[in-house]
Parts: sequence; structure tokens; C-alpha cells
Amino acid sequence: MRLASFWSSERRWGVCSIEYEALLSREPMQISPNFRNLGLSQIVAVSERARAVAPEYEKRTGKPFIYFQRGEVGYPTPPFLAEAFAEAFAKGATKYPKSGGEAYFKDAVIADLQEAGVPRIGHENIVATYGGQEGLQLVFSMFRGARVAGFTPCWSCIFDNLMPYADCTWVPVQLRAESNWSIDFYALETALQSADIFYLNTPHNPTGRVFSAADIINIAEACAKYGVLLVCDDAYAKLTYGTRHHYAVLRNTEFQNIIVVNTFSKSLAATGLRIGYAVSRRTDLIERMTLGDYSQTAGVSTPTQYAVSKALRHPDLAAWHKAFLAEMEKRAKALQDNLAPNIGAYQPEGAFYLFLRAPGGYTEERFVRELMNDGIAVVPGSAFGMSEKQPHVRLSFSTLSAELIAEGARRFGEVYSRLK
Amino acid sequence: MRLASFWSSERRWGVCSIEYEALLSREPMQISPNFRNLGLSQIVAVSERARAVAPEYEKRTGKPFIYFQRGEVGYPTPPFLAEAFAEAFAKGATKYPKSGGEAYFKDAVIADLQEAGVPRIGHENIVATYGGQEGLQLVFSMFRGARVAGFTPCWSCIFDNLMPYADCTWVPVQLRAESNWSIDFYALETALQSADIFYLNTPHNPTGRVFSAADIINIAEACAKYGVLLVCDDAYAKLTYGTRHHYAVLRNTEFQNIIVVNTFSKSLAATGLRIGYAVSRRTDLIERMTLGDYSQTAGVSTPTQYAVSKALRHPDLAAWHKAFLAEMEKRAKALQDNLAPNIGAYQPEGAFYLFLRAPGGYTEERFVRELMNDGIAVVPGSAFGMSEKQPHVRLSFSTLSAELIAEGARRFGEVYSRLK
Repeated sequence: MRLASFWSSERRWGVCSIEYEALLSREPMQISPNFRNLGLSQIVAVSERARAVAPEYEKRTGKPFIYFQRGEVGYPTPPFLAEAFAEAFAKGATKYPKSGGEAYFKDAVIADLQEAGVPRIGHENIVATYGGQEGLQLVFSMFRGARVAGFTPCWSCIFDNLMPYADCTWVPVQLRAESNWSIDFYALETALQSADIFYLNTPHNPTGRVFSAADIINIAEACAKYGVLLVCDDAYAKLTYGTRHHYAVLRNTEFQNIIVVNTFSKSLAATGLRIGYAVSRRTDLIERMTLGDYSQTAGVSTPTQYAVSKALRHPDLAAWHKAFLAEMEKRAKALQDNLAPNIGAYQPEGAFYLFLRAPGGYTEERFVRELMNDGIAVVPGSAFGMSEKQPHVRLSFSTLSAELIAEGARRFGEVYSRLK
Repeated sequence: MRLASFWSSERRWGVCSIEYEALLSREPMQISPNFRNLGLSQIVAVSERARAVAPEYEKRTGKPFIYFQRGEVGYPTPPFLAEAFAEAFAKGATKYPKSGGEAYFKDAVIADLQEAGVPRIGHENIVATYGGQEGLQLVFSMFRGARVAGFTPCWSCIFDNLMPYADCTWVPVQLRAESNWSIDFYALETALQSADIFYLNTPHNPTGRVFSAADIINIAEACAKYGVLLVCDDAYAKLTYGTRHHYAVLRNTEFQNIIVVNTFSKSLAATGLRIGYAVSRRTDLIERMTLGDYSQTAGVSTPTQYAVSKALRHPDLAAWHKAFLAEMEKRAKALQDNLAPNIGAYQPEGAFYLFLRAPGGYTEERFVRELMNDGIAVVPGSAFGMSEKQPHVRLSFSTLSAELIAEGARRFGEVYSRLK
């Protein structure tokens, strides 16, 4: 009885069903398919299961439950960001933001891009967004129904939220699991022939790979060849380890058809602040995204724009970032050093993830369950678009201390060896 | 040459046109119609024109230019809101928000609703949003393509942004200009027969009307009768003057098919904070809106949720709000008292607007231009969906001091009398 669900009370319906049936002869309003298709991430389900079993595990064993599933940044937000918020209020930066972003925010972004070697970006090339999430959502919604190619495995939110929300179709380009998640350029070129957009995330969630400048330029060339819009998700750009560094594709001014989406969630350890931006040499697209953002939210929080602009120019930022990066690198090392050699662990180059294969003969579901029983929460690879034939799990090392990570890694090895 | 616009450089195109023409034989990607149809508000155009002519006017006449066009809240944000932000940072409320809103934020909203007489609202009935704007946008996007009925005149953003963005069609229900913008219930009932949603904004932008409890209940009854979803925009609920008060429709628990959208932009004089919520007894819709909000933004800023929750319970809030309301009422009075009696001014009951008819025989465009020449910026009624046969202008009294408002009102009367 579909009509009844749009009705205010059963009582009324019962009394007057004939009259109302006539009135309601038109088709009742349906929730749009894109809203119906949205789902919660598998990561939420894993977290809820972990919360349920952790107390019993800790009581029984006396050992800490290890949460390897979360993509949160477990590191304090810089104190000068709090000061900058206080200043925003003192200066009265609490009124409607300028559509697309305040001039001072865009100036801070431009300075940041210049530092990364990106020349000739003006205010008209930038739109402030609620984190990387809104930047990506606006791009995909602007091209509703587009065919979006991208590397698999891929950030889970693409599958759970961004593709269905914009009615987009995913065209997978499998990374080579057997050679440290390297790019299969033949598969890439094949996919681009039927794609409208290519989604590139580097440093890469969930593998921790940082694609090289040569890789990135090759991808940009291939996208240009096939007239495909390149969408770069640079969320982890400032989180690279050892000698690896992120290459900003906008350094190459000859490529026009690119939108780069970025966020301050990771670089300022402030995932709850919800601020980022999109930047493109295609001002026609930035103009449309600005109107889209305005339609959705009336613009990005003014005090947040003010505070982040100040923080980006704060004299303590460099020292803070150095310490933050050193801690993340220490955690990455703790993970790598304590995973047994037979597991196939590799050194994460950026972001804060490792993506590891399940022991031979075990399904992903079984492996995740065995780990959970031994006090470890991880995310199954299927959440990142991997097929069941290649069972994997993602471990995040951003939320835990190096000591807990070391303990978790040793325990992971025990479970792995037991099953192997 | 549509293909070329998707191409990275003319040089490449020139060299390889034949090969690429074959590759690009598929239809090139188009910006979605809803993004193409978004426009800037006429209010922006008026503001830009005002900024351009104001210096010359002030130099020539020695009198201040009067900005009656803006819907900004020209009153300081409460100081305890700044303190609450500092506390949010001290407490580490800077990490990813809980999807749909933090428990403490929802608790504060529930307490606020209880004060307005709304019973039995739980966490599952609420979703935090980026102001009223995102609340409304999510409702309309969730019912993409819906036929939305609502009173004309109507908040301009409905026409410029919210309807086109969600591919919705507007079904106008004209308020009676001749009897102080009262409701024509016959016209309402006719419109509801072909509508999916009714949009009700009270206190009302742009007329300053506050619809009575009886009016609101009648509207809710009529929506229920025709199975129409009632969407209430309560943005100005806490801004009512004299003996008028806002009636919260959710007090009537027998109506299920209602979503109320609210914001703290006006009630905390903090339009730049971008925080509000939607509340409904239909938890199925709140669940979908939560997923929609998550898909768009990954949730509402955690420190902002924390700070607003604290501010809503701050002991100084009541005194602050009383002083704020007294100042707004003083400004309303300054406007009404200084407009000549022949203008047809009436007492605004809520929000911070008056909507006045142009002098007989004058087009809206001409009247707006004459006012601009005399140092007054107002918004033409067509921005609010009025027909050219009923030329009107909106005056906002929220941004100026009572003294400037009085001067502006007298000058408005001079222009009006000159043209009459």
C-alpha cells in the first residue's frame, strides 16, 4: 500500500479512503533513485562490530583491542588553529561568506599551490568546499550520469556515496597487485576510451602508494588524448614518507582539462573542520561549482575560512607539520617492522594505509572474522572495489600509537601464520 | 566546435585531428542541466550596482547611501559563541563528525524544540545541516523533479538555486497583496492538487508576515488531505515582534508528513557559521537526508556543532536574544514610522523585511533605478517571483542602524511622492 506511506495518519486514511483515493490518483512522490541508492560504508559496519566485541576481548585476554579500520587522523590539531578561530570571532568574520570563497582564503590557497610549484592560479580558478568530499561531489554532480574511470582498489566513499549520489558509473582500472600496486597503462587507455572522467587519488587510499611524476604526467597525457576530464584527489598530498613526494599535476600548464580537489582535513589533522577547495584552469567549471556549492550550503563557513587562512601562514606551521609527519612515519615503520616477512608487507609511501592480501585459500570475510576474534579490526578489500578472487584487507596506521601498532602488527602475523 | 572545449590544447588538436575525431566520436560530456540553470541572485546584481554608484552619490550629496537590499544580520555574534569555539578546540572536538550530527548537538536541538512546545523528538528525527540552505536543498534533491507549491512572493533563493538545482517545478500560490499578504486558501487547495511538496516560510521573507497558528494548521490539514509533503522553513522563527509569535507546526503530533528546516544563522546573528538542522517525524526521510548530507560534505563541522550546542545552553543567551530582538524591533519601528502614510507601509510582524508596492504607473525596473539614483538600494519584487503587473520592492531593515533606516525611509518617501 504505497499511498499510505505518504499519508499523515492511518485514522484519516481509514475514514475517507474513497474520497482520498480519487484525490491521490496521481502517482505518489518517490524518493529519487540516487538517494535510495546511498549506503553506509562497510567501515561503519566493521567499527560497530569492533565496538561490540572489544570489551569482551579485552576482558578475556587482558590485551588491548587494535582498531586498524579507521581513517581518522589520531594526532592533535595545531594549537594555532584554535587561536586563529578566536581571532576570526574577534574580527567579526562570522557573517555570510563570499560566494565561492573569501579573497583571503583563496590567497592562502594560491600561496600553498605556488609552494608546490603550481603557477598562474587566480581567484577565478578556485572554489572553497566543505572538505575534499564536497569538492568531489560537486564535480561528479556537475556531470551527472558520467562514466568515471579510476584505479581499483579505490577509496570506499566513491562506491558508497559519490558514484550513486551523482548517478555515475564506475569504470574500474585494476592496479597490479602483483607488482606493488603499479599502473597497467594498457588497461588505463582501454578504460579511457569509454570514460568521461578519470579519478586519480595519489597518495593513494587504500594502498599507501605515491604515484611518480612520470606516472601522473602519463595519466594526464592519456586523459588529454581521449578528451577525458582528469579529477585529482590530493587529500594526502602533504603526507608522504622517506624520499617520496607528491607531484602536483597543475605544474604542467599545458593541461587544461583537470580539476584538483584538496582538503585541510589531513594536512592540519582537522578532519572535523570540513574545509578544502577545488582548483582548475577551466574557470567555466569553477564558476558552475561555485553556484553548486552556493545552492547546497550558501558557502563555506566564514570563521573556518579565516582560521585556516591564518593557520596556513602561521610561523609555527612548518615545525608542527614536521613533527606530525615524523610521528606518522614512526607509525608506518612500526607497522612494517612488526609484520612477519611472509605477509607480503611493503613500505607505505604516503597517506596512512597498507593493503594486504589474505592468506591463500581464505575468503576475505573469513579472514576479517578471524582477525576480529583476535582483537584486530580491519576493513575488507571489497569495500574498496576489489573482487572476492583477490581477498585483501586495509590497515590504517593513523589512529594508534606506534606501540599499539607494533602489538597489532605482531598479532596480525600470528593470525596470518595460523591460517596459512 | 564543441569537442575542442574538452581538449587540453589547440596545438594537440591541430596536429592529430583525424585520429582524435574518431576517438571522440562518442558524445562529449555535458554539464548537467541543473548546474547550467543555476544563476546568481538579482540581489547580487543590485549590490554590485550599489557599490558602483554609492561613492559618487555620497560625494555629490554629502548624504550616506542606504543599503536596504541585503538580508544580512547587522548585529554582533554573541561573545559566548566565540568562547564555545575555544572550548571545542580545547576538548579536541576537531575530528570527523558523527554522520547526521553529534548526540550533544541533537540534544540541544531537542531542548530548543521542547521549549517551542514540540514533543517526542529523538535523535533519529534530526539531521544537522549547513544552515537552512542545505536542509532545504537536501529535501528538494531527495525528491528531484518534484512539483513544489509555495506562496508568492517567495525567498529568491528558491527560484535562483533550490528549484533549478533539484530540477523542481514551482507551483505559485499568490498571497493577497490587497489584504496584507494574507492566504488565499482556495488558491492553495487548487495548487495542492497538482503539487508533491508545499514550501511554507513563516516568518515570511520578503513580506515580514507571521502566519497565525490557525493558518499554519489549516495549511498542514490541506497538505495532509492531498498527500503533499509540507516543508517548513523556520529560519526566522525567533525573530517576531510585538504580540506575534511563531507557531511550531510539529506541536501537532498527528501530522507525520512534515519536514521542518531551521538554521542558527538568524537566531544567533551568525550567518557565516553555516549550521542548522532538519527535523521530521518521518525517520525514513531523515535517514536519507543524513546519507545525502554525508555524501555532500561528510557531515557538519564538529567544532561548530559543539560551539552552537554550548551557546544554546549558555546562561547569557536569553539576555543576549532579548537585546538583539529589541534592536531589530527598534529598526522595524524606525522604518515604519518614517515612511509616509501614502506608501502603504504596514507593520512587519517578523523576519526583517517590508515588501512595498511601486507608485502607480511605474515599472519595477524604473522605480528601483529612481531609488538607486537617490542613494537607496532595494531588491525588485520579480526576484521574489512577483509578476511585472504587480511591481514591488523589498526593503530589509536588518543591516542598518535605526538612524540610517529613518533617513532612508524619509528619502524613500520623497522619491515615492515625486513619482506618484
